[in-house]
Amino acid sequence: MIVLLKGNTTPEELRQFTDDMCQLGLDPHVTVGEAHTIVGLVGDTSRLDIGQLEAMDIVEAVRRVQEPFKKANRRFQEEDTIIVLDNGTKIGGGNFQVIAGPCSIESEEQIIHVAQEVKKAGATLLRGGAFKPRTSPYAFQGLHTKGIRLLVQAKQATGLPIVTEIMDKSHLPLFDEVDVIQVGARNMQNFELLKHLGRTNKPILLKRGLANTLEELLMSAEYIMANGNERVLLCERGIRTFETYTRNTLDLSAIPVLRRLSHLPIIVDPSHATGDAGLVKPMALAATAAGADGLMIEVHNDPPHALCDGAQSLTPQGFQELVGMVQAIRPYSDCHAASEARL
Amino acid sequence: MIVLLKGNTTPEELRQFTDDMCQLGLDPHVTVGEAHTIVGLVGDTSRLDIGQLEAMDIVEAVRRVQEPFKKANRRFQEEDTIIVLDNGTKIGGGNFQVIAGPCSIESEEQIIHVAQEVKKAGATLLRGGAFKPRTSPYAFQGLHTKGIRLLVQAKQATGLPIVTEIMDKSHLPLFDEVDVIQVGARNMQNFELLKHLGRTNKPILLKRGLANTLEELLMSAEYIMANGNERVLLCERGIRTFETYTRNTLDLSAIPVLRRLSHLPIIVDPSHATGDAGLVKPMALAATAAGADGLMIEVHNDPPHALCDGAQSLTPQGFQELVGMVQAIRPYSDCHAASEARL
Amino acid sequence: MIVLLKGNTTPEELRQFTDDMCQLGLDPHVTVGEAHTIVGLVGDTSRLDIGQLEAMDIVEAVRRVQEPFKKANRRFQEEDTIIVLDNGTKIGGGNFQVIAGPCSIESEEQIIHVAQEVKKAGATLLRGGAFKPRTSPYAFQGLHTKGIRLLVQAKQATGLPIVTEIMDKSHLPLFDEVDVIQVGARNMQNFELLKHLGRTNKPILLKRGLANTLEELLMSAEYIMANGNERVLLCERGIRTFETYTRNTLDLSAIPVLRRLSHLPIIVDPSHATGDAGLVKPMALAATAAGADGLMIEVHNDPPHALCDGAQSLTPQGFQELVGMVQAIRPYSDCHAASEARL
Amino acid sequence: MIVLLKGNTTPEELRQFTDDMCQLGLDPHVTVGEAHTIVGLVGDTSRLDIGQLEAMDIVEAVRRVQEPFKKANRRFQEEDTIIVLDNGTKIGGGNFQVIAGPCSIESEEQIIHVAQEVKKAGATLLRGGAFKPRTSPYAFQGLHTKGIRLLVQAKQATGLPIVTEIMDKSHLPLFDEVDVIQVGARNMQNFELLKHLGRTNKPILLKRGLANTLEELLMSAEYIMANGNERVLLCERGIRTFETYTRNTLDLSAIPVLRRLSHLPIIVDPSHATGDAGLVKPMALAATAAGADGLMIEVHNDPPHALCDGAQSLTPQGFQELVGMVQAIRPYSDCHAASEARL
Repeated sequence: MIVLLKGNTTPEELRQFTDDMCQLGLDPHVTVGEAHTIVGLVGDTSRLDIGQLEAMDIVEAVRRVQEPFKKANRRFQEEDTIIVLDNGTKIGGGNFQVIAGPCSIESEEQIIHVAQEVKKAGATLLRGGAFKPRTSPYAFQGLHTKGIRLLVQAKQATGLPIVTEIMDKSHLPLFDEVDVIQVGARNMQNFELLKHLGRTNKPILLKRGLANTLEELLMSAEYIMANGNERVLLCERGIRTFETYTRNTLDLSAIPVLRRLSHLPIIVDPSHATGDAGLVKPMALAATAAGADGLMIEVHNDPPHALCDGAQSLTPQGFQELVGMVQAIRPYSDCHAASEARL
Repeated sequence: MIVLLKGNTTPEELRQFTDDMCQLGLDPHVTVGEAHTIVGLVGDTSRLDIGQLEAMDIVEAVRRVQEPFKKANRRFQEEDTIIVLDNGTKIGGGNFQVIAGPCSIESEEQIIHVAQEVKKAGATLLRGGAFKPRTSPYAFQGLHTKGIRLLVQAKQATGLPIVTEIMDKSHLPLFDEVDVIQVGARNMQNFELLKHLGRTNKPILLKRGLANTLEELLMSAEYIMANGNERVLLCERGIRTFETYTRNTLDLSAIPVLRRLSHLPIIVDPSHATGDAGLVKPMALAATAAGADGLMIEVHNDPPHALCDGAQSLTPQGFQELVGMVQAIRPYSDCHAASEARL
Repeated sequence: MIVLLKGNTTPEELRQFTDDMCQLGLDPHVTVGEAHTIVGLVGDTSRLDIGQLEAMDIVEAVRRVQEPFKKANRRFQEEDTIIVLDNGTKIGGGNFQVIAGPCSIESEEQIIHVAQEVKKAGATLLRGGAFKPRTSPYAFQGLHTKGIRLLVQAKQATGLPIVTEIMDKSHLPLFDEVDVIQVGARNMQNFELLKHLGRTNKPILLKRGLANTLEELLMSAEYIMANGNERVLLCERGIRTFETYTRNTLDLSAIPVLRRLSHLPIIVDPSHATGDAGLVKPMALAATAAGADGLMIEVHNDPPHALCDGAQSLTPQGFQELVGMVQAIRPYSDCHAASEARL
Repeated sequence: MIVLLKGNTTPEELRQFTDDMCQLGLDPHVTVGEAHTIVGLVGDTSRLDIGQLEAMDIVEAVRRVQEPFKKANRRFQEEDTIIVLDNGTKIGGGNFQVIAGPCSIESEEQIIHVAQEVKKAGATLLRGGAFKPRTSPYAFQGLHTKGIRLLVQAKQATGLPIVTEIMDKSHLPLFDEVDVIQVGARNMQNFELLKHLGRTNKPILLKRGLANTLEELLMSAEYIMANGNERVLLCERGIRTFETYTRNTLDLSAIPVLRRLSHLPIIVDPSHATGDAGLVKPMALAATAAGADGLMIEVHNDPPHALCDGAQSLTPQGFQELVGMVQAIRPYSDCHAASEARL
């Protein structure tokens, strides 16, 4: 960490400051310039409060040098994390998976039918929402407990591991047979939820918030990991921008950036990012080309009658074409980005 | 709601569509244009899923006409909501209050000292954080239960009603003696928490999310109100923009816009918005001038040693000057904006 | 265009309004709802000023139905535009080109050397900046006239058509031997410049502004086309977001969206978007996979000593690898997006 | 400037680097840490290219310490700049002015009528657009030469100094009798135009770009000042955010921030920021309370028939009320922010 002191700092103030820093276990290195004095703080600065430093009269500015995340950081674990599910499915480290299914679980027929269709088309995990975060209290909120029960039935019928979203830590007992627990974009900084998920042993698919930076995403992963659960999947699902033709803007540069910064697997969700079924295929191909470890795609048997987000859902047939194109393009992708980015 | 159908929609498709809409209890009005057919849907469209409509082959676009919030809407309640606290303090409808206190509760001495100082300076409510949402799991997270106990002691010592933040619905039993429960920016769309708060009878101070629109803020207020609790205070605390000199950008146009759209009281927090004590006073004056119903100001007895957000905290003396200036400017403010905006 | 009138509009006001619209050559269709009256305006509304309509007492809101761009609109020209350069090089409609070269032209040796290297590696156009828009007046501003002369020499030496940026219409006479004139992101809405370029017969590479929507980009293309020059190339080069690890955020969904909305060719510049040489390759592959018509890549013989933007420049060897990977992936890309998106 | 070198930098590489910096006239101070080596560069770094440094293999990151603007910087000129117009009107340094007039000049009657009305109501400068930057090439573009002639007539009729926008340097000869030349938001980084205006002796009202930071605004002011013209007025007119109820988001914290960073006068334009006449008054009061040096307000005799931006124009009567309220509130504003912020 680098602290810039104001030009008029007296030698006494400077000595007091460096003494304070030493007491915090840090090693201060001082450079006196014309307009400023620069103090480099060497040591573990992750507990230091930048705001507190900035409040000091003699401090002009404070800049971090090291990333504030540790367990998620590739500096501290060079090899890719590979998440292994109960049925042996692996994600990350060269293992690419396609998660597919409807936005909402609507009925037994619907979820089992879609599960069979996406499995046939090449999906290796099944998604489906039982708890739905909706902007309006008057919109369909999901089937809750019954939805999860139906999803488990679809898992039993097809053998596909299942992914579904949690909205509150009190619901955790319902997720016993769920293979991957999803944290939605709006809960990316619900720190109480993250801490609790950190005390489980379930893989967590953590979605990037609507206006959050990649560093913030990694700090949220760090909340889970610091509490003991290191099985985190990072998910890029679009960020809010001024563009209006797409619901969000899919930030595909997140893939090589996260690859460089972290060892965790990276999943891309082009369906929620674009909100438009016609854009899902090109964005899925682009995400694959950029080196993603997996895709998450909404598929519905009857998009116009979906209870949620029909506009962005592919039909099973459209999904099958997409999987074929994704499989064809993957050998030509930047899948070695990790090792190169590391160098 | 207005639905634009594609130019090549056949008369049969159109009839099928209007029949579907009638079955949903809506009254469709059709206008056939050169390039499009326009269907105006009259009736209660708040349960209608826009995504589902957009997924239909014949639909080109869907546009809402009415605001999707109801209980928070000034159309349905013309007079300002006035929140009355247990000690008789009123907020809204011409009643202006100043909430002040430290970012974090740190010790008995600290919170009681600050409480006495801010009361003397003119504050009418006391704030202090016991549960702190921090980006890093390694940063100080607050004193939790003990913090709330200390805050209640400060309430008893000064008679000031207290405001503090909740981070999870499971903590609700700890908030029995809290007068106003705050929902932080990162939890503005934690819908499970909002629903639960809607089943309490405590006033809720709802902060706008970092990248949320005012409509989304009002929809979150609607979650609380639709569950039975209509005592919601809206709080503008800055939004994320590209500007880097301030932590966030305080959106003061939120005041007259919310005044026009809603009857709920509007509080402004210039401390978190700017993140810089030197900017709090001009922004507090500006918020008052624009017609806010109250301010929320961070005050700390010793900002450079605050455990959190020292850089944005005023000293008790600086706060006293601010209150004096705010009281002086208020008679010249746009406090009648509500009634005018309504017209 | 759809105009929502307030619920309390009188029949006389409504008649006056529809008469006014008829006088403007439009055909108004009226739907009277419970809370609003909806007037659909059929005809050419592109000259209508939305602000003027909104200022009327009886108007609640105005919404466009049709895109405000015409000549750039795929509705009015179904087949892809193909730009043919003087040497026969084609861009668009299935013709994919790679533009490469240094950020700034620095010397005769440098530009000719880089030109030969990128040609050898597979580039089909040469780029190089002579007029450089720099945030600081104290930064290197380019070699101006001399720079263009050197670029023309490199064209003569290699046969590569050349692309370079214009910053003011008064410089146009210097661009006689330039094959494609670039308009930079900061000048995307320099309408005087666009109008002038519309009166030339040079292909224009129009870069999207830092915070502009795709509709605004197409409206700027429309400025050029409406003045007579229909040879416009659209260039996605990253938009400003809150992310800090990348300079800008490359919006690759722009490719299928622009493909759907317009017939103009689409070029992607991953170098300026990311500002980081290590991210250029994955983003170039992703752009190709998503169906771009071409790439624009910064290449410098000696990036650490480049006078401008060295951090994002590839070496000739890195560029050669990139071209190989791009050529390998292109057969598996979404290059038929145009025709599908049209349907 | 601070340069972070990678941990594996060899002593030879370090010596080579410091030698290079010395040759550029800078004085390098080295601090060797555990994970990084920090080099503080003392001296004039404004010509140094950060991108070039970042491209070096041994460099991990580069951070500026000093603001890159000089002539606009309060560090180098402590007292406020006061702009004095030909008729003696002063702006800045405690002198507050109200600029008012229509968005577009439409006819002799209109501009002279509005000029007389706004003068009577308390305006001290007259604004009116002759060259209008419009997103659409099909929208009204202004009366150009004739518009400026009519504005000069209104100046002669009322004695009010006049402000109008320039869109291209070639139009400069038309601005001989214009008192203040405005640079619009879309041209804030039209550096060729800025350089030319720097060679005139006219006061320049420089509007902040739609998505530009305050530092970028000051760097654009620096372009004008570095070319010889130090009479620049900074204008906050709203930035683009995700909020849709207002056209832009007026960033009033720009006032105290610019006050601290620069000595130039600060004007606020609430009309373009909000795009809504009903929001202009509260935002004008707020801007005054926060310490602005002046306001720019759109006034039109007949807003519903304005050729441009009628929705945001006040009537002369509405403007008169606004001026009264602004004059009443100003004694209670943060007008001494400058001197305090300096400390």
